[in-house]
Amino acid sequence: MVKAGIIGATGYAGAELVRILTGHKEVEIKWLGSRSYIDKKYASVYQNMFELVEGNCLDDNIGELADKVDVVFTATPQGYLASVMKEEYLEKAKFIDLSADFRFKDADVYEHWYQIEHKSPQFMEEAVYGLCELNREKVKQARLVANPGCYTTCSILAAYPLVKEGLIDPDTLIVDAKSGTSGAGRGAKVNNLFCEVNENIKAYGITTHRHTPEIEEQLGYAAGRRITINFTPHLVPMNRGILATEYASLIRKPDGSLPTEEEIRSVYQKYFAQEKFVRVLHPGVFPETKWVEGSNYVDVNFQIDTRTGRVIMIGALDNLVKGAAGQAVQNMNLMFGLPEAEGLQLVPLFP
Amino acid sequence: MVKAGIIGATGYAGAELVRILTGHKEVEIKWLGSRSYIDKKYASVYQNMFELVEGNCLDDNIGELADKVDVVFTATPQGYLASVMKEEYLEKAKFIDLSADFRFKDADVYEHWYQIEHKSPQFMEEAVYGLCELNREKVKQARLVANPGCYTTCSILAAYPLVKEGLIDPDTLIVDAKSGTSGAGRGAKVNNLFCEVNENIKAYGITTHRHTPEIEEQLGYAAGRRITINFTPHLVPMNRGILATEYASLIRKPDGSLPTEEEIRSVYQKYFAQEKFVRVLHPGVFPETKWVEGSNYVDVNFQIDTRTGRVIMIGALDNLVKGAAGQAVQNMNLMFGLPEAEGLQLVPLFP
Amino acid sequence: MVKAGIIGATGYAGAELVRILTGHKEVEIKWLGSRSYIDKKYASVYQNMFELVEGNCLDDNIGELADKVDVVFTATPQGYLASVMKEEYLEKAKFIDLSADFRFKDADVYEHWYQIEHKSPQFMEEAVYGLCELNREKVKQARLVANPGCYTTCSILAAYPLVKEGLIDPDTLIVDAKSGTSGAGRGAKVNNLFCEVNENIKAYGITTHRHTPEIEEQLGYAAGRRITINFTPHLVPMNRGILATEYASLIRKPDGSLPTEEEIRSVYQKYFAQEKFVRVLHPGVFPETKWVEGSNYVDVNFQIDTRTGRVIMIGALDNLVKGAAGQAVQNMNLMFGLPEAEGLQLVPLFP
Amino acid sequence: MVKAGIIGATGYAGAELVRILTGHKEVEIKWLGSRSYIDKKYASVYQNMFELVEGNCLDDNIGELADKVDVVFTATPQGYLASVMKEEYLEKAKFIDLSADFRFKDADVYEHWYQIEHKSPQFMEEAVYGLCELNREKVKQARLVANPGCYTTCSILAAYPLVKEGLIDPDTLIVDAKSGTSGAGRGAKVNNLFCEVNENIKAYGITTHRHTPEIEEQLGYAAGRRITINFTPHLVPMNRGILATEYASLIRKPDGSLPTEEEIRSVYQKYFAQEKFVRVLHPGVFPETKWVEGSNYVDVNFQIDTRTGRVIMIGALDNLVKGAAGQAVQNMNLMFGLPEAEGLQLVPLFP
Repeated sequence: MVKAGIIGATGYAGAELVRILTGHKEVEIKWLGSRSYIDKKYASVYQNMFELVEGNCLDDNIGELADKVDVVFTATPQGYLASVMKEEYLEKAKFIDLSADFRFKDADVYEHWYQIEHKSPQFMEEAVYGLCELNREKVKQARLVANPGCYTTCSILAAYPLVKEGLIDPDTLIVDAKSGTSGAGRGAKVNNLFCEVNENIKAYGITTHRHTPEIEEQLGYAAGRRITINFTPHLVPMNRGILATEYASLIRKPDGSLPTEEEIRSVYQKYFAQEKFVRVLHPGVFPETKWVEGSNYVDVNFQIDTRTGRVIMIGALDNLVKGAAGQAVQNMNLMFGLPEAEGLQLVPLFP
Repeated sequence: MVKAGIIGATGYAGAELVRILTGHKEVEIKWLGSRSYIDKKYASVYQNMFELVEGNCLDDNIGELADKVDVVFTATPQGYLASVMKEEYLEKAKFIDLSADFRFKDADVYEHWYQIEHKSPQFMEEAVYGLCELNREKVKQARLVANPGCYTTCSILAAYPLVKEGLIDPDTLIVDAKSGTSGAGRGAKVNNLFCEVNENIKAYGITTHRHTPEIEEQLGYAAGRRITINFTPHLVPMNRGILATEYASLIRKPDGSLPTEEEIRSVYQKYFAQEKFVRVLHPGVFPETKWVEGSNYVDVNFQIDTRTGRVIMIGALDNLVKGAAGQAVQNMNLMFGLPEAEGLQLVPLFP
Repeated sequence: MVKAGIIGATGYAGAELVRILTGHKEVEIKWLGSRSYIDKKYASVYQNMFELVEGNCLDDNIGELADKVDVVFTATPQGYLASVMKEEYLEKAKFIDLSADFRFKDADVYEHWYQIEHKSPQFMEEAVYGLCELNREKVKQARLVANPGCYTTCSILAAYPLVKEGLIDPDTLIVDAKSGTSGAGRGAKVNNLFCEVNENIKAYGITTHRHTPEIEEQLGYAAGRRITINFTPHLVPMNRGILATEYASLIRKPDGSLPTEEEIRSVYQKYFAQEKFVRVLHPGVFPETKWVEGSNYVDVNFQIDTRTGRVIMIGALDNLVKGAAGQAVQNMNLMFGLPEAEGLQLVPLFP
Repeated sequence: MVKAGIIGATGYAGAELVRILTGHKEVEIKWLGSRSYIDKKYASVYQNMFELVEGNCLDDNIGELADKVDVVFTATPQGYLASVMKEEYLEKAKFIDLSADFRFKDADVYEHWYQIEHKSPQFMEEAVYGLCELNREKVKQARLVANPGCYTTCSILAAYPLVKEGLIDPDTLIVDAKSGTSGAGRGAKVNNLFCEVNENIKAYGITTHRHTPEIEEQLGYAAGRRITINFTPHLVPMNRGILATEYASLIRKPDGSLPTEEEIRSVYQKYFAQEKFVRVLHPGVFPETKWVEGSNYVDVNFQIDTRTGRVIMIGALDNLVKGAAGQAVQNMNLMFGLPEAEGLQLVPLFP
């Protein structure tokens, strides 16, 4: 049995980790960390776990935790893990960080977009960006995995094959993303009240959202060069789900023609046919967030527009599962040599 | 492996059966019956099942089906199963009917409330009312189980201990119930359009809803006599969930005093402490539908009102799981000697 | 022009006052009080009012306000107005209080249910309970009107004719009410976050909700004696609207028969046929909250259950309009001799 | 008084016309046409209009109607008005068509995108495209106004100043639009059921949506040449509202610099400062659909991205008001010489 500790267990991503790990046969949760609810019954904070989780919430003593468990999940605010990480902890336990602290290789990029000083830049190089489908082999060897952002997982996977194979011009990439409200966390803010979100849709973080550089960095690796994109997130009146609608200009062939539907589809198949958690939908069937709710799937598909020479790529996932806790468990499975899908055989809930 | 066939597999309850059975280790789905979608890929009707369910929808040849499978689930309109049932089918396969056809012992009651002639009254006596917590031993022996209604499961379980132990006057029972919209089915009706349901709440079937006699019959058995109640369902703008708020006058003791909190709680514990799928919440914590979403749990609790001498009992469940498909699988497990919770270890999804 | 000031203008009820008064031909808003947003543009707090309301938020100097305006609306927390009220203010301006401070005649009742000391009991007797349809003449003379609660307006009006005419036993009255989330206010609380409310329904304040004694007091006046009832509110995932489903035993006639549909209907007509804002729906058509959204209407209807001898009464209103700001404006119109419906000709928004 | 007739009065756009015209001082509704509900009380189809609208639904005899009224609104399926229009009707009454039949100058474009033969191409040239802010003077003279589509009104107005002034390259324009579900109409379709839409977001009509050529035609006039764009609509789980997020490359100045925030803002002000129903929000404040709900406003704003050289333009409106019925009334006011805002002084409803 893998012994797991969670710091930040009472946020929505932390709670989703608890939900998934509760059904994972090879894992035992040993530590439910939550500064806000120390000594309270976990199941009194998330009443859905009543009679399923017995423990109390604990403070976040990371040193003690590293001694007691095999893997530490940190579902914590930006900056937390970087501010406490030490080499000795990494020697004792594996870490999967759901924050952005170790997603970049360059501390300047982090500090520019997050406006936080990075306190442990020495671990940035070692950390593996835990998008399992792209970095599987590296994740298996990692001590410290930076679990990708919710928007980024969706945005990257939907465009990756076309960027990697040079079928689109990555500098024309525009990502228009839509998210359910759980992505905003469980903090008590007026903006996230039911009456403010319900019957409303809005864009936010226009040109400034922090997932922008993360998409640019990862798709830049695929392109083999730096790229610059537009990313615009929107808040949708639903609990879960991210839909990314992505636009890019197709690279025309020497004869001026566009890649065909079949050519593009074969590229998606090349990268995803063997991937259990990426479903390339049939032609003409486009991802909807409800079809992946509660599951670890990313659904993707595309449509060529011959009029404009662009391709529209669409991806959908559950932001708390493949966009956070599910992917973290997938990373854990890889790191501990467990079957990659263990604990993640979650059938999407519809309706 | 138990071979299962589903008739009505493309309604919401049928689809939930597919979702649950897909994760059940001892069951293989052999027949996905759907008159509306014959020969269509099941996963094209419920795209959440893409790459999870491979089969096509089939017509509903019940004779052929009974030959091929061990258990037939009928998630069909009222009157269907009664109109086709024959003794020879029951000799070949076990039947779990999610409609009301075999929920009553008296065909007149059925015909009065449903306004349909009952075509197979000869099986009404044999059929077992499949509320597992009340009829577990009978279900184990049954060939034909009448799976309870969604409202009724919730309404009965929340009040059962107090009726059974004579702590309330059952003729004072008023059940005010609230349901998510999946209970109305997947039929294309103006009343169930998003814009008609969203931002709206309404009562319907006032004094005439068909679950009324079902509650009366089952709680009547508990009371040891006929009872008459009020039942009012409401449509709530959410997908899943039923909340039943129930009111009844407490029976005063000879000294005029009311039963105490502890006395009532001990009665709930007597009936439910050993029940995996009934959770009696802690004092002061009241059921919410979100806490059971996607799971087979019924959460119950109560509050005494010393001012009026009444007790308010509250129950919550997911209408598609414990209120339909989950309970059907629980019944199947009992009928085939499988562990009662097999395939039903579904952790509630929150948020 | 009536000069109006609002204290608490940035809560939901206060904002609805602003919305309604903006369209009122005889009123000019002179003071937008909001402690939380002092000196901020009102339209930056409620962006829907951009280019419609120009002023800034001001502090709540009630003395200065009483000098400047003809009417003060207080949409403030319980206890505020009682803690600052003085005779001299009442001599200068009329007051319409949307809190509970002056809804009761007995300070003990207030203090028991609200757990707040009442600081101005000397004005309780004078204050008029501003349910216009019941107290129209008194409101016209009032200096201080206690605007009724949202649940109470709905609950009282739906049952009033039958209590007043002695057709039901008021001590059997059970009010099961359902409210949209704007009733919970704009305070930043975890319980009111989108993800906590959406896809969920729950009861709260069971046996202890503060609107209970208000319903009892007002229906007690109608009954001519003290009455005790059950009132259970529920939180529904929608922005606006209250639906009250009420149950009571009909008083049988000397011959044992129940009142007829026609008899009960004629009683509703007696009290409401002339009331512009109370709509008695046709037989078999039951109130839905969406049908009154954004308007000052209360829709009511009833259904007799001959099996149980009870009548089910149903009422629906928009909690921010007839349940708060609309009724406050209706009271203001009466107090200033304006046409009662002025500014309230709001057509319900559907869908 | 202007006498008005509505054909298609029981669709959502037709019902919104009824709602708005009910509050319009200069209009009397003389004909409520609805094939589906002939002879039924209008208020029984839209119960929100109970006691507000007394008439019955009538069949759609357009000849009789043209004799009786001054203006005919057709809120009908595509192809209806083109199939019945005659010169003599236009001589008797003014027509405002909410369908697409007369929005194009070229029947081929209509027939290509709508896949319907156009039966009255002879009126296409005369018809005025009723986007009041762009075509005010022509609308005043028109006999036949083609009321713009909901998506198109929003998409065009948000980008118009920048296209007109040559600040963006219109061929780089990408419109990612999001709509509430009322845009899908009141037809009973599985896709529009509550449970299918709720907790879900999806794109549809990708590269093929019929509002594409309408945006291209109108912005092409602004650009002074044919343009080709991408337009992708999405279905959002809310009743009302459209948000358009638009991306385009800014035209650099001769020195290679981008237009400044101030330059772009001044262009928006040039076109919209005098427009009552277009609100250019303050810098950094972006449109949200809730802020315009129930009103005739379009809110617009923009953000420059210096990294990519693009500008993101955002517009929001209520699809049933400014996107349909409100704009139709605005057109009517212009056609009959009434104040343009008469009947449209609708304050947005929040929350």
